[in-house]
Amino acid sequence: MTRQELVAQIFSKDSYLCVGLDTDKTKLPTHLQNNPDGVFLFNKAIIDATKNFCVGYKINTAFYEAEGLKGWETMQRTVDYIPSTHFKIADAKRGDIGNTSAQYAKAFFETMNFDAVTVAPYMGEDSVRPFLEYKNKWTILLGLTSNTGAKDFELQKLVVEKESLVEGIHTVHRSESFLYEKVLQTSSGWGSEENLMFVIGATQAEEFTNVRRLIPRHFYLVPGVGAQGGSLKDISEKALIEDCGLLVNASRAVIYASSGEDFAEAAANAAKAYADEMKAYLQH
Amino acid sequence: MTRQELVAQIFSKDSYLCVGLDTDKTKLPTHLQNNPDGVFLFNKAIIDATKNFCVGYKINTAFYEAEGLKGWETMQRTVDYIPSTHFKIADAKRGDIGNTSAQYAKAFFETMNFDAVTVAPYMGEDSVRPFLEYKNKWTILLGLTSNTGAKDFELQKLVVEKESLVEGIHTVHRSESFLYEKVLQTSSGWGSEENLMFVIGATQAEEFTNVRRLIPRHFYLVPGVGAQGGSLKDISEKALIEDCGLLVNASRAVIYASSGEDFAEAAANAAKAYADEMKAYLQH
Repeated sequence: MTRQELVAQIFSKDSYLCVGLDTDKTKLPTHLQNNPDGVFLFNKAIIDATKNFCVGYKINTAFYEAEGLKGWETMQRTVDYIPSTHFKIADAKRGDIGNTSAQYAKAFFETMNFDAVTVAPYMGEDSVRPFLEYKNKWTILLGLTSNTGAKDFELQKLVVEKESLVEGIHTVHRSESFLYEKVLQTSSGWGSEENLMFVIGATQAEEFTNVRRLIPRHFYLVPGVGAQGGSLKDISEKALIEDCGLLVNASRAVIYASSGEDFAEAAANAAKAYADEMKAYLQH
Repeated sequence: MTRQELVAQIFSKDSYLCVGLDTDKTKLPTHLQNNPDGVFLFNKAIIDATKNFCVGYKINTAFYEAEGLKGWETMQRTVDYIPSTHFKIADAKRGDIGNTSAQYAKAFFETMNFDAVTVAPYMGEDSVRPFLEYKNKWTILLGLTSNTGAKDFELQKLVVEKESLVEGIHTVHRSESFLYEKVLQTSSGWGSEENLMFVIGATQAEEFTNVRRLIPRHFYLVPGVGAQGGSLKDISEKALIEDCGLLVNASRAVIYASSGEDFAEAAANAAKAYADEMKAYLQH
């Protein structure tokens, strides 16, 4: 999917909501718990109920891998069931040396038909590059995540040295920046605004203005609204740009809006509430 | 598997070799290429041929995921085929917010019977903690990796501040360290020498003495010998400790030692050559 196609969908629906299918077998509504196909039937009902209010779905691969072969099959069937109009994200947090990342890229972009995959930056450029080589596919790199552990490394201060040569005098300017800022600045050169997004957690709202300054034109995938407590209003005010530039994900707050037989209807209502709020920000 | 059991196996075999099953379907010997079960038959023959010369197997999940459902099934069958005496590593580079990492830990430690999984540190403590909660299972955290991209972030300088209060005077001492050093020092407190190892790439030999100084007692999983050019001699001299403390992985140099029908025999010879060299270092 191209940026143009994604943006067109956002403005036709007035929504930049992504629904996260972090489907936990143990949290299915009672009537689906003993059904061997319960997770797929749950996802299918959620997709049918929410597709008019969201522009994408984010499949959290961990929840499928936990169920082994059956889980992997359910993931494949779920991706295939998502309408082709919608942006399909594998939230897989992959990344390894080049020849291995190439295999992960093949897994998510060829073997399965995802539009995007989340990638961890720790191992540097050659671990990210193979994902960027696919046309009309997206790499979503971890920038500043929504969890408390973000403080351990992402929010640690790095020394940044810049060299200059003015009138024959060589000077080294030293400054400091957070690791996540260095990740954004370095990696934004590896791809373009047409194939690279960043994960910026909604719980990190105080950093959003700074992030938009550093990375003015890229799309961000924003988790952490809903169960994790981030504010949709706050991050929208700080980071919406002309062609939107945001995909805000809600998982548990939508898919587990009700634990009863009305789960799909409740999910639709929750997704619609997010979309209604987003409409106001988009038109502002 | 406990550290004691792993160490006993190392000294009974005089080997700290781990064989990496990065099995690429397109690189199978000709006679197996059209066999729908080719990858499993290849792995089975490699395991049979090398098991007396190595103490563990490292399955690179990317190569299996690239083949979709069939690949995931082959991975499960391969893990089940590895003798219970051997240390089984899922080289998966996972890591996500706590509730998601818990699902990955379930996938590799419960659904599949791996002894260890490699984990990326970027997202911090709560992304690693769920893996450490399993008894007699191991988390192998990325420290300093073997690829060129290690320079992008792992080898960037961080500012480290230490506060002290002596005779009523509060002082902040500022020093600098590489990001990977901060990762080793911070995360070594999350687990113990009995459930936490670190990935240290063999191509980073100049850092090994420093790493052993920082993390004197932990086991390291060392990739990068063989195809990537790291020196077994160099890293062994710098990082072997009393109970060994090293697992050195070779993938391509062993499993693709021959591309003909004699691939298993060639793999056995390659593994034996590593083991013979290791024996000398262990007895030194």
